[in-house]
Amino acid sequence: MTSLMSPAELEAQLRAVGAERYHNRHPFHALLHGGKLEKRQVQAWALNRYYYQCRIPQKDAALMARCEDSALRRVWRQRLVDHDGAAPGEGGIERWLHLTSALGLDRDYVISTAGILPATRFAVDAYVAFVRERSLLEAVASSLTEIFSPAIISERVAGMLANYDFVTPETLAYFNARLDQAPRDADFALDYVKHHARTPGQQQAVIGALVFKCDLLWAQLDALHHAYISPGHVPPGAFGASA
Amino acid sequence: MTSLMSPAELEAQLRAVGAERYHNRHPFHALLHGGKLEKRQVQAWALNRYYYQCRIPQKDAALMARCEDSALRRVWRQRLVDHDGAAPGEGGIERWLHLTSALGLDRDYVISTAGILPATRFAVDAYVAFVRERSLLEAVASSLTEIFSPAIISERVAGMLANYDFVTPETLAYFNARLDQAPRDADFALDYVKHHARTPGQQQAVIGALVFKCDLLWAQLDALHHAYISPGHVPPGAFGASA
Repeated sequence: MTSLMSPAELEAQLRAVGAERYHNRHPFHALLHGGKLEKRQVQAWALNRYYYQCRIPQKDAALMARCEDSALRRVWRQRLVDHDGAAPGEGGIERWLHLTSALGLDRDYVISTAGILPATRFAVDAYVAFVRERSLLEAVASSLTEIFSPAIISERVAGMLANYDFVTPETLAYFNARLDQAPRDADFALDYVKHHARTPGQQQAVIGALVFKCDLLWAQLDALHHAYISPGHVPPGAFGASA
Repeated sequence: MTSLMSPAELEAQLRAVGAERYHNRHPFHALLHGGKLEKRQVQAWALNRYYYQCRIPQKDAALMARCEDSALRRVWRQRLVDHDGAAPGEGGIERWLHLTSALGLDRDYVISTAGILPATRFAVDAYVAFVRERSLLEAVASSLTEIFSPAIISERVAGMLANYDFVTPETLAYFNARLDQAPRDADFALDYVKHHARTPGQQQAVIGALVFKCDLLWAQLDALHHAYISPGHVPPGAFGASA
């Protein structure tokens, strides 16, 4: 039987989950940021990550679709603006497509998601399903990985610019926008769960939601690592598969 | 624009999908059947595969839940009997637990699914969601991997008995039952899709469902291979993870 934590204790537990499980610790990121990958491997990362990017607004819409609180929906709506843009050609998804194009991937091929790893699809779809099916509190909590993203983004941008001649600051414009957006979103969501998790069960559910989210980010990198890092086991039909 | 195939042509296409994508071709199975794994690695396989086994009856119930045809439901119901048994202590799930216990895994730990790879959970849950959300025809078609299972089961049983001193015929009782059940189920499902896929679009959907199913079986082995075959990248919290 776990006891009720103070909001500050809950926050400390959540930060401990991130310290142990956030994907900044995954070996694939060390390779990516350290300049150890070939261009094809960076392409594979960007291609697969596109599927995550393009499903995020559906995830956020799923959250809003089950939220009876107009104030929460109003705040959350900004995430849709960030990803889908205020006008055609704007927004995070478009910036990600700019990244994949700059890496030499065909835009229509990326948008088709035909070449992504099945494991990428399963993990990302699990995220959308989690937000649709679990409690609203858990749905909000599953976004809390944003707490940890500014550090990894700074490391990624610096590392990729230093180590890959096919990467420019303009290529990585997506990440610059996230450096402002993610802390704002994370502060709100963290404050929300600290105030709305009022029983030990709810607090454990919040922690579990963050563990789940860390696991699915990690699983996406495991799949990339297995498929594309030497010796490489690309599954049938995915980007780079033989014949 | 694809054209309408004869039922025999559709069957040939489905068999071609299996020849290319069924998981008998995955390198993990070559290691498993060839006696190349240590007991811990065989345990990891059995532990993760349990999650697939225990979700199969939910998958079949999801199919029946959306099926308006009493005759189809009646035939499909046998799958529930096969997996859940006619009485406590019987059925495929229980036989799988017999396998995991014989391999030295704690029964309650296996049933908890606490140690499975997140990627296993995502792939298996994607299967249940597919059957719940796609057309009934695609739901039936996604079971067609049974066409190819007798060959791999025969190879597995012979290989594991020959190569592992911790495996006995009694340990592998699950597979003996499947050698009778799978062909019966596969014959029915194949006949069903050959008769009910009456447009080119439906035929392509049937083929797509089998590709999807092969992909998710493959992804489960990719995850095992990445986590547990040397050098091994066990994700945080999974069976065999450090600390």
